[in-house]
Amino acid sequence: MEVSRLDLPVDEARRRFSAARVARLATVDGEGQPHIVPVTFAAEGDHIYSAVDAKPKRTTLLRRLRNIAANSRVAVLADHYDDNWDELWWVRADGHAAILDTPGEMAGPLRLLAERYPQYRWNQPGGPVISVLVERWAGWSASAHPNGWPA
Amino acid sequence: MEVSRLDLPVDEARRRFSAARVARLATVDGEGQPHIVPVTFAAEGDHIYSAVDAKPKRTTLLRRLRNIAANSRVAVLADHYDDNWDELWWVRADGHAAILDTPGEMAGPLRLLAERYPQYRWNQPGGPVISVLVERWAGWSASAHPNGWPA
Repeated sequence: MEVSRLDLPVDEARRRFSAARVARLATVDGEGQPHIVPVTFAAEGDHIYSAVDAKPKRTTLLRRLRNIAANSRVAVLADHYDDNWDELWWVRADGHAAILDTPGEMAGPLRLLAERYPQYRWNQPGGPVISVLVERWAGWSASAHPNGWPA
Repeated sequence: MEVSRLDLPVDEARRRFSAARVARLATVDGEGQPHIVPVTFAAEGDHIYSAVDAKPKRTTLLRRLRNIAANSRVAVLADHYDDNWDELWWVRADGHAAILDTPGEMAGPLRLLAERYPQYRWNQPGGPVISVLVERWAGWSASAHPNGWPA
């Protein structure tokens, strides 16, 4: 069986990522241990925004925030799985993250998030907001039966 | 609206993870840049196995393998998203990864993978196999409307 791979053009990668309902954020701690969490998000151009709703005293306990403070390099992944492997695709965004915690900085991202998720309209997250500046979009889509996920 | 969180017992976390069809593997390179890829996998006890199908000369080009060679610490995530946030859950496995590349080492994991994915029965991956020894299972499930994904 032929293994076919199709790299997605950047515009298509960004489009698929932006339309996904969930992504996974990978961060790294000071010892080099990776951490992953699923995140709701909103993308605009080369920025990806994700909010947390932490009590002020708990903010420093959230591993994703503590990790970003120690190492701003992150990766964010959106993917589609189907038992028919012709339907597989993924898009990964590599970049640097910043923590936005003032009302002025958070207002725009929170508005984008509320447009995507009705839950955020009724119950606005307290923040902070993680803002990822994407430096590289990488994407892949199956066009024939691949041997599992590609590199 | 009340935010409720429910940590999953380890047995339930392992059960949900093992039943998932896809997971995401996070690795870290020598510069502290995280990498994520979706992976098909098979779990047995505290081991998670995932195969790649790399031409021998390409093996060292696969970022996940190069990263694991430099830093064996990995995290693997299975999650469920639904627009009804009462249905959200995730399970994360933190551990160390090893690369298995001899036929004897790969036979058991490849058999487990073939049991889960018919594609692997027709077309066995050439390897190597990534074997993760899980040191910590962490899991969460929503029991009421949370403000997005939890910490």
